Amino acid sequence: MAELRIGLIGAGGMGRAHVERIENELAGGRISAVADLNVDAARTVAEPLGARVFTSGRELIESDDVDAVLIATFGKVHKPDVIRCIEAGKYVLCEKPLATTIADCEAILAAEQKMGKKLVTVGFMRRFDAGYQQMKQVLKAGEHGYATLVHNRHRNPSVPENYTSRNAIDDTAIHEIDTMRWLLDEEITSVRVDRPRLTSNRYEHLVDPIVLVMYTESGVRIDDEVNVNIDFGYSIECELVMEKGTARLGDQEQIFIRDRAGNRNAICSSHIDRFHAAFNREVGQWINAVKADRHTGSTAWDGYAATVVVEAALESASKAAETGGGPLVDVQMIDKPELYK
Amino acid sequence: MAELRIGLIGAGGMGRAHVERIENELAGGRISAVADLNVDAARTVAEPLGARVFTSGRELIESDDVDAVLIATFGKVHKPDVIRCIEAGKYVLCEKPLATTIADCEAILAAEQKMGKKLVTVGFMRRFDAGYQQMKQVLKAGEHGYATLVHNRHRNPSVPENYTSRNAIDDTAIHEIDTMRWLLDEEITSVRVDRPRLTSNRYEHLVDPIVLVMYTESGVRIDDEVNVNIDFGYSIECELVMEKGTARLGDQEQIFIRDRAGNRNAICSSHIDRFHAAFNREVGQWINAVKADRHTGSTAWDGYAATVVVEAALESASKAAETGGGPLVDVQMIDKPELYK
Amino acid sequence: MAELRIGLIGAGGMGRAHVERIENELAGGRISAVADLNVDAARTVAEPLGARVFTSGRELIESDDVDAVLIATFGKVHKPDVIRCIEAGKYVLCEKPLATTIADCEAILAAEQKMGKKLVTVGFMRRFDAGYQQMKQVLKAGEHGYATLVHNRHRNPSVPENYTSRNAIDDTAIHEIDTMRWLLDEEITSVRVDRPRLTSNRYEHLVDPIVLVMYTESGVRIDDEVNVNIDFGYSIECELVMEKGTARLGDQEQIFIRDRAGNRNAICSSHIDRFHAAFNREVGQWINAVKADRHTGSTAWDGYAATVVVEAALESASKAAETGGGPLVDVQMIDKPELYK
Amino acid sequence: MAELRIGLIGAGGMGRAHVERIENELAGGRISAVADLNVDAARTVAEPLGARVFTSGRELIESDDVDAVLIATFGKVHKPDVIRCIEAGKYVLCEKPLATTIADCEAILAAEQKMGKKLVTVGFMRRFDAGYQQMKQVLKAGEHGYATLVHNRHRNPSVPENYTSRNAIDDTAIHEIDTMRWLLDEEITSVRVDRPRLTSNRYEHLVDPIVLVMYTESGVRIDDEVNVNIDFGYSIECELVMEKGTARLGDQEQIFIRDRAGNRNAICSSHIDRFHAAFNREVGQWINAVKADRHTGSTAWDGYAATVVVEAALESASKAAETGGGPLVDVQMIDKPELYK
Repeated sequence: MAELRIGLIGAGGMGRAHVERIENELAGGRISAVADLNVDAARTVAEPLGARVFTSGRELIESDDVDAVLIATFGKVHKPDVIRCIEAGKYVLCEKPLATTIADCEAILAAEQKMGKKLVTVGFMRRFDAGYQQMKQVLKAGEHGYATLVHNRHRNPSVPENYTSRNAIDDTAIHEIDTMRWLLDEEITSVRVDRPRLTSNRYEHLVDPIVLVMYTESGVRIDDEVNVNIDFGYSIECELVMEKGTARLGDQEQIFIRDRAGNRNAICSSHIDRFHAAFNREVGQWINAVKADRHTGSTAWDGYAATVVVEAALESASKAAETGGGPLVDVQMIDKPELYK
Repeated sequence: MAELRIGLIGAGGMGRAHVERIENELAGGRISAVADLNVDAARTVAEPLGARVFTSGRELIESDDVDAVLIATFGKVHKPDVIRCIEAGKYVLCEKPLATTIADCEAILAAEQKMGKKLVTVGFMRRFDAGYQQMKQVLKAGEHGYATLVHNRHRNPSVPENYTSRNAIDDTAIHEIDTMRWLLDEEITSVRVDRPRLTSNRYEHLVDPIVLVMYTESGVRIDDEVNVNIDFGYSIECELVMEKGTARLGDQEQIFIRDRAGNRNAICSSHIDRFHAAFNREVGQWINAVKADRHTGSTAWDGYAATVVVEAALESASKAAETGGGPLVDVQMIDKPELYK
Repeated sequence: MAELRIGLIGAGGMGRAHVERIENELAGGRISAVADLNVDAARTVAEPLGARVFTSGRELIESDDVDAVLIATFGKVHKPDVIRCIEAGKYVLCEKPLATTIADCEAILAAEQKMGKKLVTVGFMRRFDAGYQQMKQVLKAGEHGYATLVHNRHRNPSVPENYTSRNAIDDTAIHEIDTMRWLLDEEITSVRVDRPRLTSNRYEHLVDPIVLVMYTESGVRIDDEVNVNIDFGYSIECELVMEKGTARLGDQEQIFIRDRAGNRNAICSSHIDRFHAAFNREVGQWINAVKADRHTGSTAWDGYAATVVVEAALESASKAAETGGGPLVDVQMIDKPELYK
Repeated sequence: MAELRIGLIGAGGMGRAHVERIENELAGGRISAVADLNVDAARTVAEPLGARVFTSGRELIESDDVDAVLIATFGKVHKPDVIRCIEAGKYVLCEKPLATTIADCEAILAAEQKMGKKLVTVGFMRRFDAGYQQMKQVLKAGEHGYATLVHNRHRNPSVPENYTSRNAIDDTAIHEIDTMRWLLDEEITSVRVDRPRLTSNRYEHLVDPIVLVMYTESGVRIDDEVNVNIDFGYSIECELVMEKGTARLGDQEQIFIRDRAGNRNAICSSHIDRFHAAFNREVGQWINAVKADRHTGSTAWDGYAATVVVEAALESASKAAETGGGPLVDVQMIDKPELYK
């Protein structure tokens, strides 16, 4: 296969960012088709590339011009297109979340098992970040023993008014949920949402900040401070605590300035800047893998597992006291199917 | 008063460290008397200084040669000597904890109120650390809004076999308990002890690491990772999260080395090194304050409050599940007496 | 043009690294031909790609299958192939140095002026490094005033026995020479080579470390410590000193480890790791520019200017006293031709 | 000796800072006498302490109430008082510089040799800074080999109009001159003053910044950027380059702030803040040493050597071209007398 012909479903911001990288930065693939309910949006993206335009994901998936599919629509509408891709035997890179309900995720798992082949990759791009990868290497090297705790911080300067308390978990913390499962190579078995003093810097309907506390099968305790109106730039930190040392992710690729404001390094202002290289690695490796008929990245199981943890966290949050937060809620997953072991 | 004549009760390691600083580093005071049940230990300290030797705290406190008292015995035996100092109208710097039971603390509070004068200073030296003081200044300056969370780490390379799970709270975490009350200028109202995966690097009887999660009156959420067998040096970190920024305490006064092991700065190996300057500031200011008939540092109330929080944390720990830890326990304090407002 | 067909001259390590990125990481181009005096080496690279094999650069350059040329042979043999590319009207990305003598560089400048079009890009990849680019942005923003000094460090763990004292200047320091011209947007007008105490950690024939001190047209003083047997990893540092602040390049994309060895971040072990992203950006932008018939990156003039500074530095080094080094030598350049203004 | 009775000559800012630390922070000494040409200034300092007032250093030195002397007058008038102290057999802590001419320093050396006892300590307090001491320890430990280079930065936010180009060397760089001699335990044998682009941020009469380049007996190359109008706080950096690693002094005792301005730590605004602990250690150790009839700190030879290097640097600066600076000037010292070996 000379070049992988990729069909894009969803011509919004995230979709266009993927087009940009596939066309101008990465080897091996090109956009051959674009589908969006908003045909004008699809056309704007498709025309300069000479790509075909479809008004439904279904047609695009079935098209002979499409070798593999990239889904960048809203999470709520992922399920049918993902299942169609599976049934058509086409690899699909689906932006996170895989789906927004446990039932939808289970339907996808069932479809994929029926096909007997892993075709779904969920767009958890942090697994491709150099920093997290180094951290995982340090843990695997074993020199510092096993993990006992992990501390995460997920801070944004601000969020728009339509961002909800639910989003703090299903849209924001979901990144740490997946990354922790991958980093530790274990399932999360319980989760609790703690509630600190709320910032006055938020829209009133929003519970912000919150802290998720999670435990894994072996007992590793993970916390995740989600703090999305903290005024300063997009700031992701992670400290992995092992028996004999810790590994910490700092602010990367930034120079240090020394002036009246102190001895400082800049902080990225958005996840686009912070994870640009990780997105490129994710999509680049996916293109190369698909051309070699291999699966890469997060599986449908990973998408399912993240959703189950999100549901448990939402349950804890819904029962939270004003001070102190919610109860520890068990995470109940189905047995892991053979296909994903 | 030319030089403050200080009587030392307890000629162990901590007592001798105080003697060293009072005699050789700090202005304004000298050791005029030493008491220890072990008379040889008392004599070894006293003789080179020409100080008197006593076999009981009582005699030392009553001695005319003693203007003020420094207690460096075990916490369990503090109460009677502290109360005698109060009744004798002598200022006393008592090493932490003030006492090991709430009842003992309350007895001290009662004695002090009866005298109507704050005479007791509890040896919480972190309040005198330049880093914590800068952090408090940043919070008070208000530029970043109020506090919403605080993250603490208290890590030791190792602890001896006689260190118990209880000590992780009443001897180790007690430092963060006091420092947080002082930093935030609020009482702690509830506490929970979380239990991560335990390190294999510990004596089997010890639950290590643990995480204390505490809430204050205004809802600030504080966590404190107590991790006392982590192989690397004595390492204290604190990150204060405010509405619009954070302030963090790093490793101080250390040079950076760049070699095969990386680009690194050394970590202190003991609290003696890390807080040498803070200890000196604490004792130095106490000497100057006493000479001016003023109280300085932590009060008996602070000693009481820390003990109440410790008790609540111990209760949570005692009910802890193997994974996930214990319940959130309310901290019940008596009303704060006039004297300490 | 669908895909840029690139001819590679020189199938050694650097050439193969470029093949790897063009084929597997970057959009828009492919290797259509490979030439090497060592035909087996050329064949090994070419065959898996279905690329043609040539035994001379001349034939490859003239081939209709080649739209643009990438030269990765030794500097000494660059000149004829670069001039042939110019005469054939084909864009060429030539690894640094452009040529090893001033005369050769001038011949290339003359050929390019005769064509009246900038076709030559010299492989100074640091201009594409995110850190240096941020530094240049800070300087241009003007908030901190103009530059007064720049401090550079270029440290390698070790070099092989065939690396000469000359190479410390014409192979190693040449990177800082180009980067400083680009960063400050000024020519270097004089240079001196200082000689510190030599490390015992070197082959005896090598003068190591050395320090280049350079001045620009406006008087900015640049120093460059070249220290190529320092045992620890490939370490590039640059501090730009402006009137009201400094900007500094640190170790990038590395996590922090905290253990017995200290609180540290790893140091890259090779320029391949350190500048992987910069190499990709350089070649990726070149492919896109060539397809749009535009020049990008360092020009032949930049290649010439670096060589002239190198020659002046070599003259200073050749006259160096054992302690203190050589004289300040003027850098004499021809007038800058219209084409490069 | 119960308490060392110290006579202070010079009741200006530096003198009063020493009084403050001796009276309120340090053990073992007190101010028993104060002399200043400005009697009112002397009286203001002396009276609250019950110290005697003198109008001349001579009377103070001869007074029976004075065990040891602290000189904090201007460098130009140090010589006669230092020699009187020597002749009176009294230890003297003389603020830097020891004297402002080589001849004056030699006269002091001669007087001290005649007495056959080291009585003079020069106030080079950086030797007592924890960071420099750690650096010296790392070098002595030998694990990274010997030193090859040292890079220093001495930056001030601004200097007053009466600060001269000469002061950049004899008042500012003199600190690095002494510290480097002590750190490397070698004499400096040659020095050159380089002249970068001048900042527009200065009074016009001042040459700022400058760079001193010095070589030691074994060939170690030292540079020192003196940059005294750089707008941001008092900032001292030192990087010691050894054969197999480097050690670097950063900004110490400061917390990290993370907000809109970046991830930063504060920079001290004055040498008083930066070296408060070093000053205390210097004076504290001097008091203890004098009471034990021992010399401590920098000797008169160290004061002489620094002055000789300063003179050579001034000669280089006086011959400096507008771009590129001055010649390498040999540092000519007399043979080191037995007393100082």
